[in-house]
Amino acid sequence: MRPGAPRYDVLTLGESMVALRGSRPLKLGGSMDVSVAGAESNVAIGLSRLGHAVRWAGAVGDDEAGELVLRTLRAEGVDVTGATRDPAAPTGLILFEPRLPEVTRVHYYRAGSAGSRLTPEAVEAAFAAGPAPRVLHLTGITPALGPSAAEACRRALRLARDHGTQACLDVNFRSRLWSSREAAAELRSWIPYVDVLIASDDELPLCLASSESTPSSPEKTLLELGVREVVVKLGASGATAHTADGELHAPAREVRAVDAVGAGDAFVAGYLSALLDAEPVPTRLDRAVTTGAFAVASRGDWEGAPTRAELGLLGAGPGTVIR
Amino acid sequence: MRPGAPRYDVLTLGESMVALRGSRPLKLGGSMDVSVAGAESNVAIGLSRLGHAVRWAGAVGDDEAGELVLRTLRAEGVDVTGATRDPAAPTGLILFEPRLPEVTRVHYYRAGSAGSRLTPEAVEAAFAAGPAPRVLHLTGITPALGPSAAEACRRALRLARDHGTQACLDVNFRSRLWSSREAAAELRSWIPYVDVLIASDDELPLCLASSESTPSSPEKTLLELGVREVVVKLGASGATAHTADGELHAPAREVRAVDAVGAGDAFVAGYLSALLDAEPVPTRLDRAVTTGAFAVASRGDWEGAPTRAELGLLGAGPGTVIR
Amino acid sequence: MRPGAPRYDVLTLGESMVALRGSRPLKLGGSMDVSVAGAESNVAIGLSRLGHAVRWAGAVGDDEAGELVLRTLRAEGVDVTGATRDPAAPTGLILFEPRLPEVTRVHYYRAGSAGSRLTPEAVEAAFAAGPAPRVLHLTGITPALGPSAAEACRRALRLARDHGTQACLDVNFRSRLWSSREAAAELRSWIPYVDVLIASDDELPLCLASSESTPSSPEKTLLELGVREVVVKLGASGATAHTADGELHAPAREVRAVDAVGAGDAFVAGYLSALLDAEPVPTRLDRAVTTGAFAVASRGDWEGAPTRAELGLLGAGPGTVIR
Amino acid sequence: MRPGAPRYDVLTLGESMVALRGSRPLKLGGSMDVSVAGAESNVAIGLSRLGHAVRWAGAVGDDEAGELVLRTLRAEGVDVTGATRDPAAPTGLILFEPRLPEVTRVHYYRAGSAGSRLTPEAVEAAFAAGPAPRVLHLTGITPALGPSAAEACRRALRLARDHGTQACLDVNFRSRLWSSREAAAELRSWIPYVDVLIASDDELPLCLASSESTPSSPEKTLLELGVREVVVKLGASGATAHTADGELHAPAREVRAVDAVGAGDAFVAGYLSALLDAEPVPTRLDRAVTTGAFAVASRGDWEGAPTRAELGLLGAGPGTVIR
Amino acid sequence: MRPGAPRYDVLTLGESMVALRGSRPLKLGGSMDVSVAGAESNVAIGLSRLGHAVRWAGAVGDDEAGELVLRTLRAEGVDVTGATRDPAAPTGLILFEPRLPEVTRVHYYRAGSAGSRLTPEAVEAAFAAGPAPRVLHLTGITPALGPSAAEACRRALRLARDHGTQACLDVNFRSRLWSSREAAAELRSWIPYVDVLIASDDELPLCLASSESTPSSPEKTLLELGVREVVVKLGASGATAHTADGELHAPAREVRAVDAVGAGDAFVAGYLSALLDAEPVPTRLDRAVTTGAFAVASRGDWEGAPTRAELGLLGAGPGTVIR
Amino acid sequence: MRPGAPRYDVLTLGESMVALRGSRPLKLGGSMDVSVAGAESNVAIGLSRLGHAVRWAGAVGDDEAGELVLRTLRAEGVDVTGATRDPAAPTGLILFEPRLPEVTRVHYYRAGSAGSRLTPEAVEAAFAAGPAPRVLHLTGITPALGPSAAEACRRALRLARDHGTQACLDVNFRSRLWSSREAAAELRSWIPYVDVLIASDDELPLCLASSESTPSSPEKTLLELGVREVVVKLGASGATAHTADGELHAPAREVRAVDAVGAGDAFVAGYLSALLDAEPVPTRLDRAVTTGAFAVASRGDWEGAPTRAELGLLGAGPGTVIR
Repeated sequence: MRPGAPRYDVLTLGESMVALRGSRPLKLGGSMDVSVAGAESNVAIGLSRLGHAVRWAGAVGDDEAGELVLRTLRAEGVDVTGATRDPAAPTGLILFEPRLPEVTRVHYYRAGSAGSRLTPEAVEAAFAAGPAPRVLHLTGITPALGPSAAEACRRALRLARDHGTQACLDVNFRSRLWSSREAAAELRSWIPYVDVLIASDDELPLCLASSESTPSSPEKTLLELGVREVVVKLGASGATAHTADGELHAPAREVRAVDAVGAGDAFVAGYLSALLDAEPVPTRLDRAVTTGAFAVASRGDWEGAPTRAELGLLGAGPGTVIR
Repeated sequence: MRPGAPRYDVLTLGESMVALRGSRPLKLGGSMDVSVAGAESNVAIGLSRLGHAVRWAGAVGDDEAGELVLRTLRAEGVDVTGATRDPAAPTGLILFEPRLPEVTRVHYYRAGSAGSRLTPEAVEAAFAAGPAPRVLHLTGITPALGPSAAEACRRALRLARDHGTQACLDVNFRSRLWSSREAAAELRSWIPYVDVLIASDDELPLCLASSESTPSSPEKTLLELGVREVVVKLGASGATAHTADGELHAPAREVRAVDAVGAGDAFVAGYLSALLDAEPVPTRLDRAVTTGAFAVASRGDWEGAPTRAELGLLGAGPGTVIR
Repeated sequence: MRPGAPRYDVLTLGESMVALRGSRPLKLGGSMDVSVAGAESNVAIGLSRLGHAVRWAGAVGDDEAGELVLRTLRAEGVDVTGATRDPAAPTGLILFEPRLPEVTRVHYYRAGSAGSRLTPEAVEAAFAAGPAPRVLHLTGITPALGPSAAEACRRALRLARDHGTQACLDVNFRSRLWSSREAAAELRSWIPYVDVLIASDDELPLCLASSESTPSSPEKTLLELGVREVVVKLGASGATAHTADGELHAPAREVRAVDAVGAGDAFVAGYLSALLDAEPVPTRLDRAVTTGAFAVASRGDWEGAPTRAELGLLGAGPGTVIR
Repeated sequence: MRPGAPRYDVLTLGESMVALRGSRPLKLGGSMDVSVAGAESNVAIGLSRLGHAVRWAGAVGDDEAGELVLRTLRAEGVDVTGATRDPAAPTGLILFEPRLPEVTRVHYYRAGSAGSRLTPEAVEAAFAAGPAPRVLHLTGITPALGPSAAEACRRALRLARDHGTQACLDVNFRSRLWSSREAAAELRSWIPYVDVLIASDDELPLCLASSESTPSSPEKTLLELGVREVVVKLGASGATAHTADGELHAPAREVRAVDAVGAGDAFVAGYLSALLDAEPVPTRLDRAVTTGAFAVASRGDWEGAPTRAELGLLGAGPGTVIR
Repeated sequence: MRPGAPRYDVLTLGESMVALRGSRPLKLGGSMDVSVAGAESNVAIGLSRLGHAVRWAGAVGDDEAGELVLRTLRAEGVDVTGATRDPAAPTGLILFEPRLPEVTRVHYYRAGSAGSRLTPEAVEAAFAAGPAPRVLHLTGITPALGPSAAEACRRALRLARDHGTQACLDVNFRSRLWSSREAAAELRSWIPYVDVLIASDDELPLCLASSESTPSSPEKTLLELGVREVVVKLGASGATAHTADGELHAPAREVRAVDAVGAGDAFVAGYLSALLDAEPVPTRLDRAVTTGAFAVASRGDWEGAPTRAELGLLGAGPGTVIR
Repeated sequence: MRPGAPRYDVLTLGESMVALRGSRPLKLGGSMDVSVAGAESNVAIGLSRLGHAVRWAGAVGDDEAGELVLRTLRAEGVDVTGATRDPAAPTGLILFEPRLPEVTRVHYYRAGSAGSRLTPEAVEAAFAAGPAPRVLHLTGITPALGPSAAEACRRALRLARDHGTQACLDVNFRSRLWSSREAAAELRSWIPYVDVLIASDDELPLCLASSESTPSSPEKTLLELGVREVVVKLGASGATAHTADGELHAPAREVRAVDAVGAGDAFVAGYLSALLDAEPVPTRLDRAVTTGAFAVASRGDWEGAPTRAELGLLGAGPGTVIR
């Protein structure tokens, strides 16, 4: 990075897939809506809607499904010029099956996908092209996809440190992709590079060595290990941020729940948006629970993410009609 | 009006449009359902479903959208023989965009529409054709559409007085169409002609001169100005009627909310229906909150309006199956 | 029945129809989803999903609608080799019309249908083919369909007694098909054959002679008449089972209500499933309120019935995503 | 009829049903579109679209399906004030099942329907109410529905003669409803009352006694029996009209075929429209093949019927865009 | 096989997948219909619809997609009691993307699927369970899925010979799954076991060694190698059968093309159906081109397959309405 | 323009609107699909799909409809950084109503729209930002939208000349927007600036002064006036190009017609693509009729536009399945 070069806001990378969403149990047939999903691209879209400059540097196949992923990200104003098109592997699929009003079943078709074959070279290229990002955002899903993708993440963390880029990690543990032991082995080594750690309550131990993980306060341990902000998502109970200044809690925003999928990613987008705006922690938490509530109130992974102008809509009363 | 001539129940006029209703944010594309909406025609359908003889004397373009408006009103038994088809202007459109479960955004394509060009002559013709109506129903939307439409309303109010027809006004202030100052300037001059005034809480001051509007009880002032019944819609808090006999309150009916659009119009239809049935004020309020609840419980502007036989359905328990 | 012959689990019979389900009031047109419904086949599917071997021995027309009924039951693993195809009568239809979020109107096209012409001979054949069932399940709908169908039920009850098959009756009174007097005249004569009686609160008197029906506890009277288990469905208040050992109550499971249709049948399936598993009464009631809750939480008559593995899903918290 | 009283254009009567139209074979489930169908109401709508004053005097049940029939006819400007609502019988249903691109299977649920119970008294009332029609239109379907409906037709034919109303009969033989022998027995007795007879080639013998039906030219025999115009529909080969002036042929209009259902009724509407306009036979045939072609080019029974202004559209070239 | 034991008609095995079918290019999103596809199960359904007893012995995952495959086959009357549920691999997916009216693009998600892991043991079990089939049907797709699936096919061919079961092979070369060299290496070794070989024109060389494949008539060579019937599918040009008795050609049936996918499988079902009926070759070819035409005229892989009663429908004229 | 600066391929400007497309006549209601349309943006997308760098510099409202326009163009890789968002006017709408299989009716809601208020300043800015385009593409629709838009076009033509940018004009006369006299008055003055003129046969006279327009060959006159290439679209008859080298004709590509809307714009995209590739005139015409055929074969204005790799698909035979 040349000193003084302007930076763009966020670089993120990970697997995005074509998402198929049914309206009844899969085994009954019917029809499914086609969209796009991916934890990191959900965050990217959430940030772009809020006005931030975001780049997504994942990999898709050189197929129509990959084209849909890229079309969608471009539509949302996310820069995909650093994305890789892999001619030798397909774009992954994810099927969302509604089973009960509040229970969704997910089926993956991502084994061997282009997204899982993301390379460290692609990450190098993303950092090499133009100015450096202010924030790098990773999730704990990507290293579970395969050795190349894991190495790409590690490379990204090192490059972030080299470029003075803050690193944010959303743990997002997926038991279908790897065991908690495997996850812990990988993620613990990331902690020294992480500035902002976001996780649900039960995911915190995955970030600590077993010798470290017994303490009653994993948050405190993580702060001691150098993480600047530990943000804990508590679902309907809101969220808590732990920093050197202490602990702050924000309750969840009340909203009529439609689809919880994507709420965690929306939360991250809100948190990072306020961080990029140089807002203090209470404002970050507040924006995070607000964008999270938008996701819960909307069908889809990212479709309901608010623009900056829409952030205030959530407070409108029932039956609000904006004429 | 010849003395003793039989009257039909209600004449109403105003703009009705083709209504497009999406199931997700407009900017995401998808599809939209096509129907018809208009405050006055919503009232007309509500009354017709309850068995009253209603005429709608608005204007539509000489186009397919206008044909849809007329087809829909005819289907619902509303007499449209007095409606105008304007060959020189299109039928307006209204787009309803769902943004959050309880927040709907509305987009109008009605500038210069046929409906906004309604003429006083059309109103003259509507009164001249056959017997006079028992009730004339107007809203505060129509005068905001343009000078000709405003003059048509004034003409209608004068003709109503000449024919011994009661006049009902639902204030329905639309800030997108005019300012509250403009609205007040127009509507205050209508008050001497109005028998039944229906408004939401915050709309009452629009009906009073600024010298009059300071008092703590605008309802009382309106009664003093000659309005016979002042009915205040309070949304989830029900409604209150003010007459010479005092003030009466009715709570809202509990119902699972689906779509608040059209609830105010449905409320008016219920109120006028009971008034036409010569029911006392408590019954009028009760029917009004009941028809309003039907609208809240149904998708669309008027689609869920009850027939007289269905009025009792609202009390049925959860999970009722009528076999 | 040869002594010692292995038995399959359940035989049931009754009318199944093509079910058309709209998403708005029928008089507004639109579109309707096509499926299959029938109280007994709903129970059959519920049991098959839970792993039991079930036969359905109803009658359908030799038409495409009948083929849909049979395709659906076969898909669900219900044995229909004993079903009758009647070349001289059509398969019945049932239209479900949503009127309010919690009120559904039903329209039947089943007069003279193949299902209503079920014959005692078909029942004879069902018992004669292979081993006997452990349980026979009937509802009070079938005898209301016509004399032949009523006689088929009586024959089935006698054959059940002859074969040592337990008989279960779900009263399911349908006032559109017959009067309560007619129902009582028929059903009382069945009581001596019934082992498990399932009914809603207000249906119990239909099972007792007028001389018997005055007592404050019809359940006790029914037990005295030889019914082994009297299970009373109380909707949102749960259910109560009365046996020689006394009375047991289970509250309803909390769930977001989607469609109450089919909940009673799902309840029966859960109860019989646990009975076939030789579970004690509390477990039977518990499984019954659980399967009932699944039905309430799902659109359709039987579509949401759980497999055995899914029974535990109901306790998952809001926003559960099974990845 | 008072001499000189103004007449309206057409009175027609017969059964109209709720029509369900699938997009794939019925046995596969899926969904069906809900509309209305009936040979006579198809003709009524076709005529109303062309600007004629039409009354439909059939019977529907006092149910939501009947309301849909009436809503649809009112929407299309057909006068239904003479229609009967039968509280004791349901409105019939008709299911259209697409089996191959050019083969549609029809399933009726009309046995015992309100429409089949049409009474002579209803016909009397229709003639007694106001001025007489210029044309009465019947089809050979109605007498097949039951003795009351058959008697209603006979009554209508006699009243037509009494009132100087021309009678038009479209034979429309339905083998599912009656045998050709039954049809012939009934329809032959109608011939003396019929002014305009419309039939397909193979239906002509049904209008002649067996002693009459052998001749090579049934058309000539029918003319000799007093029919003024014998119009023979030949499908893709067009149509032929036989009158005292000889025989005239019109080829079919070329059009991309979408759905042949309703084409015959549309043909009748075109023919009668030109007859009411006092156009000569060639113009009648031309309008008939044109309206028939519109029906073939449109999905549904009547949905694509042209207005007078649209009649010219058919000649537009491929890819025409009317901006 | 015990001598004289009754046989069922056909055993087939191969991979069936959940099929998603869009109505516009995949990259534009939208929605997709969910069904089931698989060359062998298409044949199985086609045969079952024609009244034959068929078993399908493929493998699916122990997931909801697998359940949909089994539900569909059961619905169609195909015996799936010999199917394998693989807990360690998912059911494959296939996406059909319409690109032009006559061009469909296919995307597979079947790498590592349960269907591709079919085992020889499963085939052993299928032959061991009950009587032997009269015909074994395989395609050249299965051996391309992996070594285990290839070995399963070889085992099936040997078992067929041992049990006196005729073997039918539809070459169905898929260049996405293997090279023509690989295909030839495998399929040539099957020829000695094959009684009926079905292939398109350009697939024939795949069945011959390179030393054999030069001759001008590969059909003759195949007959010399012991194949009893060589049936060549020629698409719009019909089909040709080569036997010891010479060569026979049947032209394709004219039909309005809707979707060519599945036509080859439908052709095979028709051919085998007539063979099972002991019809001579001309009748086999005729039934094959007829069932093939049904597939071309219907959307989906197998949805439009005719029953025996429907075979005659194809000759019905345009605009046929079966009332 | 700095000498030697690299250029991007195409700049285009004009009005793009939200497009609503029904599947049946508008007056019958139903639903409409939401997309985007605009002659110039159709061309832009067509070019982008073929790999060219394109900028679109139109204006949309600062509303959700405008956001949909921009999202769509971004998705397709069209640079919209030069687009204007007008806070004071809405984005226009266009409704496509299918009336017959080959006749589409269009309804505009574009009066006073943001797109019609495009300013010369916006055009200045588009040229000022970065390198100059190689081609400027305009249509004759834009000047019909209002004086500001007309002036914007004139400015663009002058700037093109100043920057050495070739100008392409597609006449696209819209009689709903202006008279042929008005069109001619405007467009004639453009001719001196135009390098490539594309028009349908009957539009050519609009480009010539009345003194010029009588000649038998308007093409020759246009060439004499300095137009380098005159390309005449002849619909199903193909197209003809007139240059100094003479006249060249290309027949239309055969394709199953689905929707002719957008075919002209697709034709232009193909022509310009080959021109940018420095292909000779025959190749330009060939690519133009090919991309035009893709549009005719696809639903929507631009949705079916081919990528470069897909250009060859059109020659695939019927029933092609790309596996």
